[in-house]
Amino acid sequence: MPGFVDVTKGVNYSFLDAGQGNITEYLELLTGLPVLIDNDSSLIALAELRLGGVRNRQNAMVVNIGWGIGLGMVLNGSLFRGESGFAGEFSHIPLFTNNKICNCGKMGCLETETSLSVIAEKAIAGIREGRTTQMKGLSLDNLEETFKKIMDAAVKGDKYAVELVSQAAYHIGRGVAILIHILNPGLIVLSGRGALAGRLWMAPIQQALNEHCIPKIAENIEIMISPLGYDAERLGAAALVMEHFDEKKFLRKGQNR
Amino acid sequence: MPGFVDVTKGVNYSFLDAGQGNITEYLELLTGLPVLIDNDSSLIALAELRLGGVRNRQNAMVVNIGWGIGLGMVLNGSLFRGESGFAGEFSHIPLFTNNKICNCGKMGCLETETSLSVIAEKAIAGIREGRTTQMKGLSLDNLEETFKKIMDAAVKGDKYAVELVSQAAYHIGRGVAILIHILNPGLIVLSGRGALAGRLWMAPIQQALNEHCIPKIAENIEIMISPLGYDAERLGAAALVMEHFDEKKFLRKGQNR
Repeated sequence: MPGFVDVTKGVNYSFLDAGQGNITEYLELLTGLPVLIDNDSSLIALAELRLGGVRNRQNAMVVNIGWGIGLGMVLNGSLFRGESGFAGEFSHIPLFTNNKICNCGKMGCLETETSLSVIAEKAIAGIREGRTTQMKGLSLDNLEETFKKIMDAAVKGDKYAVELVSQAAYHIGRGVAILIHILNPGLIVLSGRGALAGRLWMAPIQQALNEHCIPKIAENIEIMISPLGYDAERLGAAALVMEHFDEKKFLRKGQNR
Repeated sequence: MPGFVDVTKGVNYSFLDAGQGNITEYLELLTGLPVLIDNDSSLIALAELRLGGVRNRQNAMVVNIGWGIGLGMVLNGSLFRGESGFAGEFSHIPLFTNNKICNCGKMGCLETETSLSVIAEKAIAGIREGRTTQMKGLSLDNLEETFKKIMDAAVKGDKYAVELVSQAAYHIGRGVAILIHILNPGLIVLSGRGALAGRLWMAPIQQALNEHCIPKIAENIEIMISPLGYDAERLGAAALVMEHFDEKKFLRKGQNR
């Protein structure tokens, strides 16, 4: 799940905490099955670490480009979660003085210029103002389909669609430059539904790094598109279960190990 | 030393790499003593971890307020150095669109609005423009003394001096808000010559966190002024030697362990 997830307590402080308390126990009660929850971007990073681009790597940032911009971090060969499990709130770093209110209530967060919904909103506004483009029938009522149309147009070379994706990607690159200066990773993995159209994101992100990184700290950085694609989150969920498989709740009644 | 230090190779890529190569070997040759080098902010964090405010803590950011704004990070109870030992280049995160060129050659780095030299430059410019203040005889030729005069005036309540320190501290706070969202630490330690006048820095930094952090991720953050003060860097150097004391170069000729 997206949001502030405390993996140990099984609580998501951002969603479904209204009265039900511990969502893990709630789902176990409803399904009769053992349940684990984790933050979506942490799981994507776990998938990359166990089965994808981060295998045998020590320090990597896995950027999850979606309705927000998530981040999972592999530091010294392990998934890093922070003091309360909330590390990786990349979407909400205060990066812009753009007077735009974010979903989180703050102003100028990274996602106010970069999330897929912002791209969709900009596309619709631009078309209304008469921008030339092949894109048609975009609507905020169906963001999933609208974003797919924008990406399809961009992949086919529609200039306006490419421009929209590039602007967002460049701003993400500015955020990635911050990650590089603070954490000095060896690898950046671009993941999530947004990143699947590889080249479109790579070039503007690299451009932002060229402009905003000290060359010495960026010279050996490798940037790759996730080799796991759409499967990353589900593979991460499977990896999470594997890591907890020895716990009591996964034993059948009467079974001992 | 400040700069990009590779602890293992004994090289500082930012300073004294012009022809001499490995600075560790160079100093050993000159002094006849075993030599270790490390980044100054990493050492300050090491000192806080072993002997200061980070003892028994898992995740802490040690911010070194000086001629630049350094950062040493304790993650999962250990000093984190990154892929090449360059982690913590906090001073050079691209945070402003202020058209100011930084020492590093990039534009808009955190230190272009926050370092002690920027505070001194602003003070001198303000006095030239007729700002009312007790401060006298400031000069860029002696930054150390100039900065001391500014801090003395601020501690005594000089309104303009307080304003200069507060502006810088607020911007540092914006940078710290980024660290909190990315790494979810439990503790921020303010260290370095700038931070020693505690209260002056704490309030504007806390103000910036109130404005720029999602409350949930910042609610349990503790901010403290370094208990080690000016001694931190030297204590860190001592701690570094202790950690390497079993290495071959510390054994006297003919001695075995």
